[in-house]
Amino acid sequence: MMMLQGIAASPGYAIGRAKVLSTKALEIDKIKLDSHLLDEEVARFEAAVAAARIELEAVLSKLVAQNKEHEAEIFEAHVMLLEDEELIDRSKELIKEEQLNAEYAFYSTSEDIAGLISGLDDPYLRERAADIRDVSLRVLNKLRGVASASLDDASQPIVLFADDLAPSDTAQLDPGKVIGFATKAGGRTSHSAIIARSIGIPAIVGIGAALDISVKDGQTVIIDGSEGHVYIDPDEATLARYRQMQQEQLKRQEQYQTYLNQPSMSADGVQVELVANIGSVKDAEQAAASGAEGIGLFRTEFLYMDAEELPSEEMQFDAYRKVAEAFGPETPIVIRTSDIGGDKELAYLNLPKEDNPFLGYRAIRICLDRADMFKTQLRAILRASAFGNLKVMFPMVATLGEWRQAKSILDEAKQELTEAGIALNRNIEAGIMIEIPAAAILADKFAKEVDFFSIGTNDLVQYTMAADRMNPKLGYLNDPLHPAVLQLIDRVIAAAHANGKWVGMCGEMAGQKHALPILLGLGLDEFSMSASAVLPARALLAKLSKQNMKAIAQAALELGSAEEVRAYIEEHVSEIH
Amino acid sequence: MMMLQGIAASPGYAIGRAKVLSTKALEIDKIKLDSHLLDEEVARFEAAVAAARIELEAVLSKLVAQNKEHEAEIFEAHVMLLEDEELIDRSKELIKEEQLNAEYAFYSTSEDIAGLISGLDDPYLRERAADIRDVSLRVLNKLRGVASASLDDASQPIVLFADDLAPSDTAQLDPGKVIGFATKAGGRTSHSAIIARSIGIPAIVGIGAALDISVKDGQTVIIDGSEGHVYIDPDEATLARYRQMQQEQLKRQEQYQTYLNQPSMSADGVQVELVANIGSVKDAEQAAASGAEGIGLFRTEFLYMDAEELPSEEMQFDAYRKVAEAFGPETPIVIRTSDIGGDKELAYLNLPKEDNPFLGYRAIRICLDRADMFKTQLRAILRASAFGNLKVMFPMVATLGEWRQAKSILDEAKQELTEAGIALNRNIEAGIMIEIPAAAILADKFAKEVDFFSIGTNDLVQYTMAADRMNPKLGYLNDPLHPAVLQLIDRVIAAAHANGKWVGMCGEMAGQKHALPILLGLGLDEFSMSASAVLPARALLAKLSKQNMKAIAQAALELGSAEEVRAYIEEHVSEIH
Repeated sequence: MMMLQGIAASPGYAIGRAKVLSTKALEIDKIKLDSHLLDEEVARFEAAVAAARIELEAVLSKLVAQNKEHEAEIFEAHVMLLEDEELIDRSKELIKEEQLNAEYAFYSTSEDIAGLISGLDDPYLRERAADIRDVSLRVLNKLRGVASASLDDASQPIVLFADDLAPSDTAQLDPGKVIGFATKAGGRTSHSAIIARSIGIPAIVGIGAALDISVKDGQTVIIDGSEGHVYIDPDEATLARYRQMQQEQLKRQEQYQTYLNQPSMSADGVQVELVANIGSVKDAEQAAASGAEGIGLFRTEFLYMDAEELPSEEMQFDAYRKVAEAFGPETPIVIRTSDIGGDKELAYLNLPKEDNPFLGYRAIRICLDRADMFKTQLRAILRASAFGNLKVMFPMVATLGEWRQAKSILDEAKQELTEAGIALNRNIEAGIMIEIPAAAILADKFAKEVDFFSIGTNDLVQYTMAADRMNPKLGYLNDPLHPAVLQLIDRVIAAAHANGKWVGMCGEMAGQKHALPILLGLGLDEFSMSASAVLPARALLAKLSKQNMKAIAQAALELGSAEEVRAYIEEHVSEIH
Repeated sequence: MMMLQGIAASPGYAIGRAKVLSTKALEIDKIKLDSHLLDEEVARFEAAVAAARIELEAVLSKLVAQNKEHEAEIFEAHVMLLEDEELIDRSKELIKEEQLNAEYAFYSTSEDIAGLISGLDDPYLRERAADIRDVSLRVLNKLRGVASASLDDASQPIVLFADDLAPSDTAQLDPGKVIGFATKAGGRTSHSAIIARSIGIPAIVGIGAALDISVKDGQTVIIDGSEGHVYIDPDEATLARYRQMQQEQLKRQEQYQTYLNQPSMSADGVQVELVANIGSVKDAEQAAASGAEGIGLFRTEFLYMDAEELPSEEMQFDAYRKVAEAFGPETPIVIRTSDIGGDKELAYLNLPKEDNPFLGYRAIRICLDRADMFKTQLRAILRASAFGNLKVMFPMVATLGEWRQAKSILDEAKQELTEAGIALNRNIEAGIMIEIPAAAILADKFAKEVDFFSIGTNDLVQYTMAADRMNPKLGYLNDPLHPAVLQLIDRVIAAAHANGKWVGMCGEMAGQKHALPILLGLGLDEFSMSASAVLPARALLAKLSKQNMKAIAQAALELGSAEEVRAYIEEHVSEIH
């Protein structure tokens, strides 16, 4: 048995046979063509580009339908490359002027461009070069009549090992066949890790050179995507342990089902709301089926990301009304106004490229500058408020001035609709995300004016700790259990309750087992999480006494580090085990 | 008279004659050479590249000597381009294989590469393309025997107007001749604005198309770089007003000189420390001459930025000792350990390119990973501590664990030196920067362990407000007077004093006239600022009663916005006027 340590890229356990992908160098012949063949060769080239494009767009629309924004972006960039005049026109020129075969013409053009870019000694450019080579290979495969996915060979469930996986390979992995993967390279610059998580298969990246000499086709392997461990040829004890862990995981999932139609109630009879974060209309149906009592965060970015231009009021109204109708008329649904900008670029908005997008021009900061765009969204939400219990929430609010400006645009929209005789809920609740330290610190001021808060811990943690939550080197800082974060949360909840307002949380923290006891103790009213986390949270909640958790939370606030908080919860809240 | 509004890029007033730079398109002839001339042509090309490189390196070393990191980075990138094999070797190939003149060969190669890059529809790449074209023009000028700076024509003080200025033009501006400039384009992607500030001439960028039709050579113009106003052909009243403002500025500067050898004392006799931020050994001498009572922040990055490899212990020791010796043996000098990484890239450390460098792997985060590098710096500081009153300070500390780890490496270094019989101050004070919200919130925990705090407001504000302080669209958020920031500062000072520790501040805020009354009232002990701000601050301090400022500060903490705080100080602290 051998154990290799890599970067845990996607959680879960896989036990299976290894399949090692070798990356052969491309061999492209250079052929001089007779001049009467050139038109035909150009046509053959155009057909290959068109076929590659159709293939890319098929993958793209699948990903968009699954609401996988990150993955879709990769393919969008690839489609754009196939429209790139430099790449395509130069290849055609080479065919016609140098009388070359399409394979060589295209290969040498794309290698030329990729080589130039990667030669300029800049990591960002190297990444773009990888994209060009990935697209190039796809077109070459079309020219040569080779199927793109070399992974299709696998006839039985396998664990894949490779130097690296091209972004497009990863996104096409069929989780039925490939139950996990591990790569030598990788990290944040390759998109593979992100994609693996969204497909939901365990994955480990960045194992390094040790991988080359350690694993052979057909060996039994275990991927522990939660710890970043790869076991090659595991001994019986290890196999048994992991089989049991898989079993336990399965059993727990069955137990959770018994909580499906139960109220979200603590052991001492205090009821809270367990609701879901969603990012599309389809998610709403899934959330309802997963036991969520409503929606604590409806991300509306998909309406902006999937479009070629700003989404119309009508189109937005339609989406919001559908979500409202997916639940009963009383069920609370919190719609967040668009959190675009930053890392979510929209070509048609022509936003500047930023050095620090997470500290950038985004969300409410853009909306207040583009009041027309913003009011269109608010009108759509208000119109849909006639069809369900909608609430509206503004993201990235830092100052009272921003909140007041947003609120006044909302009031204008109400006025316009009322004057036009259009039905709406004039008393729709309006709140803000608390995700910027400044807003948390001034929560007492905000609480006098807003209807509710929802604490966005993902961003709140990264700003409070000054650590990009996507940066793999800073994982140790991105811990919502840090007492500084807990103190801010305590402050926000206290300020809201002192003013008779309710507080939700829509960051990942709300569903975490070490955090839930503290949040219950601090008095959080609404816990919003991914739909799959709702039932486990309800099961844990049923075991906890809110009265006891108050003392636990107060003790946690006084500790000095996230590690101490975690250890304290481990020791004093036996219910999480 | 006409007034145009642009982006205030560099403060101050300039009154002078307009000089309008027109940007003519380059005309490059394509000449077929006889084959026996080719070796000579390659040699001529190499000589031009070498000459361009010498010119670039001369500018570069001037900028490095002036500790102008940002500007130096631009020229470092340009020097690297001149070493780029693609660019240079391809040009030579074109000369030899296609028998072309050097001008055309180099121009077409660089345009090719720049065109390819900018064609890929990515703002980052477009910026690189501008760099390539800038370097290309420099080499072409050498080949054609043309002087690079088209600005040298100006024989008398002028205010320059241009579509845009190339980064290298701006850095070479002679403030004796060019007393201000205004451009049509510009913003953060051009480096011109940053450079103008560091040269210290007023500048306005991003005026837009209005500039084309508004200004002609020789017209009288006023540049108000503080407000972003350009007056063309101003009337007598406006001219008189600006002449008076210039006079007043001059007079104030003379008055400040009377405070040169005075103590830093409030009107009611409370003494504080007014010290300087410096970034090089030379700065230390200037700071001493400007009335600074010590150094509150000695940035040590220059040792790392100017080198090809990690600076040796000996070299660092030498620099730290020189700074210690620039002052008396009692004068406090706070040395900050290296704040590298993030936007300060070092090729030899091979750090990953990051999506959000301001939230990235930098400063103490790198140092704790590279304990050898860190200990080398600490040993150098400790050895220099035998020559003056040095203190050591760690940047970007977010958690107690980071502080303890840094402190234990410092203790190891002390132990090693002591065992080797090398002189040092074993009781050297060790403190941390408070620039991350988490550290400010847990200041009571840190205060039990550190010897002092220094509040770094530039970063503290940007994290508390979640707004990149370099992003021109977010200027309204980057205001240290925001009550959330003031509350954090209050918390830090209170925690330190409760534990008998002192607190300094080394962000820009420490020298600002609206902030100084509040900071005095909150009990700040040490104010560190740019050397030129020390005397104005001492003059203001002499007029303020600390006792009165306590009530002012408490009132400011309770306000809801930075605007309210500013207005409150304007109204209630008449001494700032």
